[in-house]
Amino acid sequence: MLKHILITDSTLRDGNHAVAHQLNAHQIAVYAEAADKAGVPIVEVGHGNGLGASSMQVGLSLVDDVTMLETARKHLSKSKLGIHVIPGFATIKRDLIRALDIGVDVVRVASHCTEADITQRHLGFVRERGKEAYGVLMMSHMASASVLVEEAQKMELYGAEGIIIMDSAGAYLPSDVEEKITALVNGLKVPVGFHAHNNLGMAIANSMTAIASGAKLLDATARGFGAGAGNAQIEVLIAVLERTGYITGIDFYGILDASDLAEKEVMPVVPTIKSESIVSGLSGVFSGFAKHVTRISKEYGVDQRDVYRELGKRKVVGGQEDIIIEVVMDLVKNRK
Amino acid sequence: MLKHILITDSTLRDGNHAVAHQLNAHQIAVYAEAADKAGVPIVEVGHGNGLGASSMQVGLSLVDDVTMLETARKHLSKSKLGIHVIPGFATIKRDLIRALDIGVDVVRVASHCTEADITQRHLGFVRERGKEAYGVLMMSHMASASVLVEEAQKMELYGAEGIIIMDSAGAYLPSDVEEKITALVNGLKVPVGFHAHNNLGMAIANSMTAIASGAKLLDATARGFGAGAGNAQIEVLIAVLERTGYITGIDFYGILDASDLAEKEVMPVVPTIKSESIVSGLSGVFSGFAKHVTRISKEYGVDQRDVYRELGKRKVVGGQEDIIIEVVMDLVKNRK
Repeated sequence: MLKHILITDSTLRDGNHAVAHQLNAHQIAVYAEAADKAGVPIVEVGHGNGLGASSMQVGLSLVDDVTMLETARKHLSKSKLGIHVIPGFATIKRDLIRALDIGVDVVRVASHCTEADITQRHLGFVRERGKEAYGVLMMSHMASASVLVEEAQKMELYGAEGIIIMDSAGAYLPSDVEEKITALVNGLKVPVGFHAHNNLGMAIANSMTAIASGAKLLDATARGFGAGAGNAQIEVLIAVLERTGYITGIDFYGILDASDLAEKEVMPVVPTIKSESIVSGLSGVFSGFAKHVTRISKEYGVDQRDVYRELGKRKVVGGQEDIIIEVVMDLVKNRK
Repeated sequence: MLKHILITDSTLRDGNHAVAHQLNAHQIAVYAEAADKAGVPIVEVGHGNGLGASSMQVGLSLVDDVTMLETARKHLSKSKLGIHVIPGFATIKRDLIRALDIGVDVVRVASHCTEADITQRHLGFVRERGKEAYGVLMMSHMASASVLVEEAQKMELYGAEGIIIMDSAGAYLPSDVEEKITALVNGLKVPVGFHAHNNLGMAIANSMTAIASGAKLLDATARGFGAGAGNAQIEVLIAVLERTGYITGIDFYGILDASDLAEKEVMPVVPTIKSESIVSGLSGVFSGFAKHVTRISKEYGVDQRDVYRELGKRKVVGGQEDIIIEVVMDLVKNRK
């Protein structure tokens, strides 16, 4: 019995995290074309933090939203064009309307795992416009299974046609994924999805555990290109899915070709699991903190691994980058 | 309840595959020292194909066996020194006696998964000399669980104090590991071990599945340095083992330091999962074939992915490199 899994290729969105949002129009064009040719159902494009996020605070993207989306649109024929939207970064009036006008097909509205409330208006607007709308719960390791179900149910009520939980810190082991996906599948009417990161070397195994637990949607990227230690590697995932009897509509040689091209033309370095990625994964710290942690730790001569562990204890989330310096100063004090 | 897992660090042996056996004495010295400091129980050193294997056919090592082992011996104080021994490459008289005289503590005698017979004399000799002896079944995906149990029982009878199965082609998914390790644990009195490769992104997950199925021995390498898509990444494995309540005696920060040093001083490139690794893993082809397949496929203008798939169907094993050209010629013929 073949079972269908819907794949979103986030190479041109999560991958942007790995290059400080410096993907250029040529890279977007060639990869979108290759993914389209391979039969990828949804190609997600944008700044790492999604639509409207380009800013001094989280990083300016090289190419603006309009150019990124228009470029991708031009090079996608069968694949749908998707965007990642965090309300707060992206407003409906300024950003979302324009994106839909360019021809975005799929909008994934994302919030921190305990803040689904903020997605209501955006989800509603996308549904009104007749486009596909999904809800995304980020940093999902920070909430219990029952809290995730409650938050996801809110999104479902707001009109989300599926809910994806993200392991934004790469903190999950397969048993965690099984627990949370099972709870969500049981608690929701809409399909459930999983977005992996590879900090603990489990991106593929966690993705496979998610679908064994009933998930129907998976995110992945070419060569794992993405934040931190990278995402689930799409060409590996397709191989493993095919071998275990799932279908995705993606051509295996086609996605191998796309990933070869990505390695050559899109990414400067293929992600590997560095020591700090492991510690940040273990500590459950968002991988967007990495560059700040390295820089500030070096400046004050403290062990960045201790910084991650303390940040993990304090349960920091994106936007709380100021706490890094507090933690470092405390470590300096304790050393004396 | 903490459970103990015995780790063999194969960075300086399997890693040698990744550099065509060109590890130098300085690299062996600095990594051995770092692994020793981190409390790694067994440090395995040598040519990728083990003791006595340096040759025109499988590749000449930069440094001879005696120098490699003497160098490592000098830099290990708490860690045991291990070697990988394939009878046929390594003779007792010429190679094994000398290695033991240098101070090797642990000898792992390896054969293709259906040829345990050839390990009898070597295993017996190591036990007579009072050293630790293990049996290793390579390319274990090519034999059924019941055949592996039979072969492993032979090694047990010959004196092996533990049996390790190798996923030499990186072909296993967790369900395969569970089936085979469970059968071995039930069929043997001695401890069972698993040696992973990462071609399908499952090296860490497969290693964890092995111990969940009763294995007590695991192999791993710094940053996954090794043949094909690399091995289980030791610093990730230690993180995941600690988090799930296993003990190894290895200090977590110590192994992170060792792996950082390895990336800087020992390996030219950290392994990533390339397209051809995925296809070779799916096809169950030994990763030592990779360079030949790429070269010959290019020469005759055939798709190397098709070559792997055909090699997989023909169930080739190490030593049968001649079949590559046969397969390529057949593909050329069929194209016409």
